[in-house]
Amino acid sequence: MSTNVLRTADGWWVVRGDRAVPVDTKAATTAELLADRDAVQEAALSDEAGTPVADLVALSPVTTPCRVVAQMVNYRSHARDSGFKGDIPPAFFRKASGSVSGPGEAVVRPSHVKFLDYEIELGLVMGAPLPVGTVVEERDLPSYVAGLVITNDVSAREVQLTKTQFYESKSYPTFTPTGPYLSLLEPEDFAHLLDLRLKLSVNGELRQDRTLADMIVRPAQALTLLARFQTLDAGDLLLTGTPGGTALKAPPKAVEKIGALLPPAVKWKAFFKSQAKNPHYLNPGDVITATIATPDGRIDLGEQRTPVADANQTPR
Amino acid sequence: MSTNVLRTADGWWVVRGDRAVPVDTKAATTAELLADRDAVQEAALSDEAGTPVADLVALSPVTTPCRVVAQMVNYRSHARDSGFKGDIPPAFFRKASGSVSGPGEAVVRPSHVKFLDYEIELGLVMGAPLPVGTVVEERDLPSYVAGLVITNDVSAREVQLTKTQFYESKSYPTFTPTGPYLSLLEPEDFAHLLDLRLKLSVNGELRQDRTLADMIVRPAQALTLLARFQTLDAGDLLLTGTPGGTALKAPPKAVEKIGALLPPAVKWKAFFKSQAKNPHYLNPGDVITATIATPDGRIDLGEQRTPVADANQTPR
Repeated sequence: MSTNVLRTADGWWVVRGDRAVPVDTKAATTAELLADRDAVQEAALSDEAGTPVADLVALSPVTTPCRVVAQMVNYRSHARDSGFKGDIPPAFFRKASGSVSGPGEAVVRPSHVKFLDYEIELGLVMGAPLPVGTVVEERDLPSYVAGLVITNDVSAREVQLTKTQFYESKSYPTFTPTGPYLSLLEPEDFAHLLDLRLKLSVNGELRQDRTLADMIVRPAQALTLLARFQTLDAGDLLLTGTPGGTALKAPPKAVEKIGALLPPAVKWKAFFKSQAKNPHYLNPGDVITATIATPDGRIDLGEQRTPVADANQTPR
Repeated sequence: MSTNVLRTADGWWVVRGDRAVPVDTKAATTAELLADRDAVQEAALSDEAGTPVADLVALSPVTTPCRVVAQMVNYRSHARDSGFKGDIPPAFFRKASGSVSGPGEAVVRPSHVKFLDYEIELGLVMGAPLPVGTVVEERDLPSYVAGLVITNDVSAREVQLTKTQFYESKSYPTFTPTGPYLSLLEPEDFAHLLDLRLKLSVNGELRQDRTLADMIVRPAQALTLLARFQTLDAGDLLLTGTPGGTALKAPPKAVEKIGALLPPAVKWKAFFKSQAKNPHYLNPGDVITATIATPDGRIDLGEQRTPVADANQTPR
């Protein structure tokens, strides 16, 4: 049975129903908390009444700086949305961990960005070092992954597509809302990962809704592929890709082939002119809600609820 | 006048001619050394005879983990090589800092890589935090950049081009040889940056040879653009792009336009079939030498000399 942990300005809490019990720990970082599992266990078993969760302001349960790595195109439904045909070579990119924000904090749209998009993703929080060359089998997953979080891989689409490298477009401050809960898993919970259902709504309208069964490269294989070149440590975060339903959809294949013959600047100008009519991009005032859970509630990462704000109207 | 620092397993040294004087410091990381400039100064001014530099085994003067950020296509000559026409949107990507290796260490070619390429780049080592939103003018550069290093942005081209995101292809261990010297600059040295000449040879054959005058986005502007989304701290490393002369050259425009009409897997298969005849990619046994200096020697980052090794023949 998983244990939900949340973090506030005062420290760490274990969630029990609608109340939370403080964890007696000196841990400042997620890695330090993961090294103090006894304290978490103690809070989980204590007979304290605790504090209503509704009274707490949750911060990201993943502290920064840490490595934030993300998988590109990793759900079949998103691959179809993005116009991919045939095999998709599994690829990774980085997000600056300065983009990590709390589960109730506003997503701030930079003043030069018009095409702001959402991507709900399951985040894996590492519990142990992953040295280069590690091969992670399904049964090894509990040795490396400590728990799960909801993340939103917020993306500035015109930056992403014109610059080709995803790094900047997904790294602005507040572009990785994370939490509320870090759900610490027991080994037997891992058998239920594929039942996890990701749901994201904008202003109450459901936009993304898929289970992990739609995933292309699953967590154990993803860590094996990542470990071809990359070391991870406890407290690092891997975003595992988003299902279909984002605002951005690839243009029809025929249009794309014409686009390929144009100079990039001309191609993107035409593309974003067409996107200006797409009502699904995020606007200041919108509210994004995101949940990830199994149907039986065995694993339930809580609800993330982030408003969208305009950089010019937000004090820094 | 710049001060050259090098790092060995025993600690930090100031280079004076062909001899080096140990720095009396507890600094373990580059950031800590940069905070202990008095100790560096003391070694620079001491009357110790020191140790012959030739007797020291230099490690990377940039310690890890740190942020390693790189600029994409940032020399006009490389843009031409890569088939770019017109404006190139400035873009950044990350390299895993696990790729940083010493200036004499072997570059290890992973067993699945055939098209291994070199990219000499000037590395900027940060000396102070760069908060998001910072605007860096030319005159502010000395407040943010502590010094310079030679870096080689080694690239597995078939990984880079097929995965589109550069992250994996440039992040394998040993894919960022760094050093030998961290050249700490005085404010007046910054006026001479454009005179720096980058030269890279493979087995004595000169392949890259340009000054910074060929650069597109210069350091102050690069930091301003990066600070749109990214925080940096002292000890972090920014790679500023490579001049023309890499093994990889873009195919002629006509061939590329036909390629754009093919499924990606078919396009890349044809492209790398043609590249198999290109003799400029790196092979085990090759030796790469790289230097960056002003003609008057005011700034001289030393010589990097890295052999290329095969993963299968290298003990881990």
